[in-house]
Amino acid sequence: MTDHPPPSPALLPAGMRDLLPPDAETEAMALAALMEVFASHGYGRVRPPLLEFEDSLLAGNNAALAEQTFRLMDPGTHRMMAVRPDMTPQVARIAASRLGGAPRPLRLSYAGTCVQVSGGVLETDREVSQAGIELVGADSAEADAEVIAVGSEALAVLGLRRISFDLTVPPLASTLITEFGLPEPDRAPLLRALDRKDGAAVQRHGGALAPVLNALLLAAGPAARALEVLRAQPLTPGARALADRLAAVVAAVERRAPGLRPTVDPIEFRGWRYHTGVCVTVFAAARHEELGRGGRYVGPGGEPACGLTLRPELLLRAAPARPTRSRLFLPFGTAAATAQAMRAQGFGTVAALDLAEDDLAEARRLGCTHVMRNGRAEAL
Amino acid sequence: MTDHPPPSPALLPAGMRDLLPPDAETEAMALAALMEVFASHGYGRVRPPLLEFEDSLLAGNNAALAEQTFRLMDPGTHRMMAVRPDMTPQVARIAASRLGGAPRPLRLSYAGTCVQVSGGVLETDREVSQAGIELVGADSAEADAEVIAVGSEALAVLGLRRISFDLTVPPLASTLITEFGLPEPDRAPLLRALDRKDGAAVQRHGGALAPVLNALLLAAGPAARALEVLRAQPLTPGARALADRLAAVVAAVERRAPGLRPTVDPIEFRGWRYHTGVCVTVFAAARHEELGRGGRYVGPGGEPACGLTLRPELLLRAAPARPTRSRLFLPFGTAAATAQAMRAQGFGTVAALDLAEDDLAEARRLGCTHVMRNGRAEAL
Repeated sequence: MTDHPPPSPALLPAGMRDLLPPDAETEAMALAALMEVFASHGYGRVRPPLLEFEDSLLAGNNAALAEQTFRLMDPGTHRMMAVRPDMTPQVARIAASRLGGAPRPLRLSYAGTCVQVSGGVLETDREVSQAGIELVGADSAEADAEVIAVGSEALAVLGLRRISFDLTVPPLASTLITEFGLPEPDRAPLLRALDRKDGAAVQRHGGALAPVLNALLLAAGPAARALEVLRAQPLTPGARALADRLAAVVAAVERRAPGLRPTVDPIEFRGWRYHTGVCVTVFAAARHEELGRGGRYVGPGGEPACGLTLRPELLLRAAPARPTRSRLFLPFGTAAATAQAMRAQGFGTVAALDLAEDDLAEARRLGCTHVMRNGRAEAL
Repeated sequence: MTDHPPPSPALLPAGMRDLLPPDAETEAMALAALMEVFASHGYGRVRPPLLEFEDSLLAGNNAALAEQTFRLMDPGTHRMMAVRPDMTPQVARIAASRLGGAPRPLRLSYAGTCVQVSGGVLETDREVSQAGIELVGADSAEADAEVIAVGSEALAVLGLRRISFDLTVPPLASTLITEFGLPEPDRAPLLRALDRKDGAAVQRHGGALAPVLNALLLAAGPAARALEVLRAQPLTPGARALADRLAAVVAAVERRAPGLRPTVDPIEFRGWRYHTGVCVTVFAAARHEELGRGGRYVGPGGEPACGLTLRPELLLRAAPARPTRSRLFLPFGTAAATAQAMRAQGFGTVAALDLAEDDLAEARRLGCTHVMRNGRAEAL
């Protein structure tokens, strides 16, 4: 006897789940629609492997992913392998190595499953799907804007229209503080205060910079107003360059995707680890749920790059439901050619495997919407 | 100094690989085409997770998969999880548990990536993709034939037409030997002889059964002839029932898929672990490469089921190449509406991110097939 009954064999590890009909097909179709938008903009699809050697996957910038990563030993080489927690580092590796000789700018797309040791802050999924693009070898506002505009088109194809694109410049605050020469002991508490958006603490630790930083904190909102505040405030040269780039990205986005109307939060830097320029977070406006994120970074070998990663399963929770396929019951003995013709019309056919006493009842029992009678599909 | 230079960061574990453009897109499109055929026949897609608890994934029949399975510990529960080496057991689990109450026959489809500790006999891939169907809760020749016919239609959609479907009945030989009451010490050597198709050894160990077994060994080939031999030979009751089912499956396949013309190998059982009835192996006729396999088995809880699993990456090596999308270079400043119209025509557009000195040269450098000039797409 034991106090604990054996776990049900159907119990899955936390954060892992089965997708059932029709959700799994809906997800696959939405993913295909996303990838089609990326391909139509010249992004070539790559498919990196699920497992890589740990020292390759978690090299450089990606060391921060280590705590999110499942590891296992390759029995052949006794080297540690990692199940990818994120596909972006893999795509960056491919761009720098196997496609190192391909012409720049290089446009790549990808979609796949990742596994993370624990879910993010607002979710419990440990198996997460990703679909994204990377634009490698270009460092310009046009490049930043292209990634945002293409992402926005992909979301529109899924029927997601009430989306907000929040632009940030994660290195701006620290650049401003460093270049301004704020005394070293004040820097860490000041960054924490900015992270908490705590104006009083910014006042305490920000010295002569406090009014500027608090003005920027309050500037978060529609892009036009935020950019006006950024223009009006005195910034150090590096911070000014970042602010100018942000303004150029907003202008290029408005040209390429006039309906997008981004918001800007100039001081936000939470959760950005290795980004070096303008970044974007995509939210479902109604639910304040993060659907994707991306931005500018420096790839392996120092190459400039920017990208955007969307989360298909989260998109689907936010997207309007799609109509599912009609299911047509085919009584036993229906001719193969008839069945084929009905499938060509878009029906999913459900063939009886033997004679039913009552075809209508059998069709209903099997969840069909239609039944084949007298040579045509009748709605049930 | 060390004798061995550090491994290149781009080196992947054995059996893992990057798929590059255009192969990754071709594979995704082929997979979508397969899944569309399955859906059109009423198979509802499921998506089980990449990781499950080991004791769930490798329960019962699936213990044989253990040596192919990577394991890792769930830090939350300290239970061992397994990276799936095969999706069929997961689909069987879903059918028996979460969809245990769904009407039968239950038709499910699936596609995804699996990881195996070492590659199969004829290949070195350790990350393998699978796409398949399971027909659960029906035990009839019609059900066996449906799975084969749907698989054949899916292969035809990929342009794979020179395919051979080899039908086997893995339990037939052992049923015959057991029911016949052959002396225990002869059984194992006899099965080994049959596995090697060694007629002389069959003669030595087969006793009075040897002529029957050797006739069946020689019967392998086109279905009509093999079935004739099976009919003519004296079989024990259980073996006769299996042979009759095989004949009924061949007849049902010929009705549903007249062009398929299966072959039959009545004695073959190698590589089949838990199958209880008619099985099928799909080969590319020209290359003798196994593209998929499936057959009848008993699912969790004793429910009859049959299925077929295809290997998309192997299908693609055997399938004719598909035309890739035309790439259209858009000079800097091309209107957004023009770009959109060209994508709607099927072009993949490649937008210049700044002014090029020579648009034609730039288009060529970027691997484009067309360039936008004077308001239309000119072929390069």
